[in-house]
Amino acid sequence: MFEFELEAVDKGSGARAGKFHTPHGVIHTPVFAPVGTLATVKALRPSDLHALGSELILSNTYHLYLRPGDELIRDQGGLHSFMGWDGPILTDSGGFQVFSLSNKRQLDEDGVTFSSHLDGSVHRFTPERCIQIQENLGADIIMVLDECPPPDDYDYVSESLIRTHGWAEKCYLSKTRSDQALFGIVQGGIFSDLREESAKFLTGFDFPGFAIGGLSVGESKKEMYQTLDLLEPLLPADKPRYLMGVGAADDLVNGILRGIDIFDCVLPTRLARHGAAMVAGGRLNMNNSQYAQDSGPIASDCTCYACSHFSRAYIRHLVKANEILGHILLSMHNVHFLTQLVRELRSAIFSGEVSQFSETFLQHYAQPEPDSVST
Amino acid sequence: MFEFELEAVDKGSGARAGKFHTPHGVIHTPVFAPVGTLATVKALRPSDLHALGSELILSNTYHLYLRPGDELIRDQGGLHSFMGWDGPILTDSGGFQVFSLSNKRQLDEDGVTFSSHLDGSVHRFTPERCIQIQENLGADIIMVLDECPPPDDYDYVSESLIRTHGWAEKCYLSKTRSDQALFGIVQGGIFSDLREESAKFLTGFDFPGFAIGGLSVGESKKEMYQTLDLLEPLLPADKPRYLMGVGAADDLVNGILRGIDIFDCVLPTRLARHGAAMVAGGRLNMNNSQYAQDSGPIASDCTCYACSHFSRAYIRHLVKANEILGHILLSMHNVHFLTQLVRELRSAIFSGEVSQFSETFLQHYAQPEPDSVST
Repeated sequence: MFEFELEAVDKGSGARAGKFHTPHGVIHTPVFAPVGTLATVKALRPSDLHALGSELILSNTYHLYLRPGDELIRDQGGLHSFMGWDGPILTDSGGFQVFSLSNKRQLDEDGVTFSSHLDGSVHRFTPERCIQIQENLGADIIMVLDECPPPDDYDYVSESLIRTHGWAEKCYLSKTRSDQALFGIVQGGIFSDLREESAKFLTGFDFPGFAIGGLSVGESKKEMYQTLDLLEPLLPADKPRYLMGVGAADDLVNGILRGIDIFDCVLPTRLARHGAAMVAGGRLNMNNSQYAQDSGPIASDCTCYACSHFSRAYIRHLVKANEILGHILLSMHNVHFLTQLVRELRSAIFSGEVSQFSETFLQHYAQPEPDSVST
Repeated sequence: MFEFELEAVDKGSGARAGKFHTPHGVIHTPVFAPVGTLATVKALRPSDLHALGSELILSNTYHLYLRPGDELIRDQGGLHSFMGWDGPILTDSGGFQVFSLSNKRQLDEDGVTFSSHLDGSVHRFTPERCIQIQENLGADIIMVLDECPPPDDYDYVSESLIRTHGWAEKCYLSKTRSDQALFGIVQGGIFSDLREESAKFLTGFDFPGFAIGGLSVGESKKEMYQTLDLLEPLLPADKPRYLMGVGAADDLVNGILRGIDIFDCVLPTRLARHGAAMVAGGRLNMNNSQYAQDSGPIASDCTCYACSHFSRAYIRHLVKANEILGHILLSMHNVHFLTQLVRELRSAIFSGEVSQFSETFLQHYAQPEPDSVST
């Protein structure tokens, strides 16, 4: 169980292609996982995700713990059965949401006490509790509890790292299910010595995979890529590497070139609900009047259901009228776009053309305007 | 074109089964048409509607005229092409929405001037304009402009009827497309002499079908059924009869027993967005905590995608969390429920068992509490 087969390694970069075996099927890496925060990838059905080629989805421990509750999901046969998705699932530890969503929180060495963003009720996550919740949910890949600190405050990140490492060890020791892979999470902000320290500490445990946390949280892209460059030789080559919460197309390309195998992000579905379509050149804001009479598809080379059946004019109409079908079609298109991009990169790794493919893609990719569509 | 084949007529009631031929396919009657107000049946895709067995959908002239505009839709190849639905479509005349949605309106003999509910801009519908808009949209079945008055104000309904009849005649005369069937609309509120007068006036024109308007707008069910009883012998047997805006299960059964062939209603999709599931016994409010741990489907005898794949517990979770998938699954289930009910009634007409089927159904059907789920 949880064998990671390396199938191809690119000579000119850190890029690699592999297969990660889980109880619910093989994940072909590199892979992009859409996010189903509340046990549903927003606006999509499990059958859509299969049709889109998604091989892994992520769900959120913090959210599911609060509602409908991890014990309810356990009693309903676990998350796969509850949400009708028979493929691999990854659950995060909830740590990120405690720090980004809850109104109040109090940290101590043993865990974090926080108030729910839903009703203010008080809860506590310890490493042991966090594993217990994820064992109730029953995902294939589960994560250690970590703190995601502001990336550029050295003193804070340094202090936080000690706590996060202690939690990782406790998670490692408290895990009981053999059909779940527990990944460690490397933290350390933008500081190379702290990242190095974290990688060394965590690789001292026999985790079946390693995540890189605390990126895409305000640091520059250059800082993100430098951190990935630093970590690439420090993480074991024979285990999957997961860059958490990253889903911009250029970051996927740059991450794959630096040896990342797994990505997840709410970006494609969140952009969809804001009316934005992801395309090779960047993003289209489908609210714009320029699409009002445009009878072409979102992307002429795209084979998704939205592009096969509907015009930009129709999708713009749906977006302007805030129709659910607009969210559905753009969610399909955006998830398809990222899934397809990662699949093409995987093919290019096998054919030895990943550097060339990446260069061409990035040349044509325009960074979205910061205020073009709110994410 | 627009041939109506009567296939079977029940001996013990007014119920009948038939085929109505349109440019986009045959409609097997009786039929229930889900409503796609803004060129989308909310939360569903065209492929869903085909899978659910929908043979006719309705779209709203008032809404589409305001956005994206009937000329834009004409330029995009018409409504079928625009929304990706290749089956039959019916558009209403927009009259009902002018009277129910617009903030201000001024009636005169020649038409109605009204302000948009979207931005307050001023517009005018005349019978001729209304036909022109519907010709731009290009539905298979189109409707005359009518006024939908308060059903129990005799003096008002009586005066309104003169105007509505004048508009019907003007619509009849101004129509130019031969690939669209224009239906007349019988008005007259709850007053038998006015309904009779209206039926006589309208059947003086060679409309290929007749609608009954102004019902399900505040009158009692008894008054609705009495009006249908009155009209049944007054409307030509060889043309389809359409009861506008009616979609409660008991009303479908009672309408079919009284010779109605076509129904439309927002009810199944609107109830879905409020978290209600339509079932043989009435309605389930999926917000209720009694479903929180219920691992069974919405209805054990239902074959829809929602009931085949998901539990009440999961759907309740989606509804409580206001997830789009909750709207999708309940919309599918509710449209399937009404479509299936009407299909079973059609079978029962052929087998001579429609009265018995209806009696059994109505015995088990509980009127929803008025405040159970807001529609």
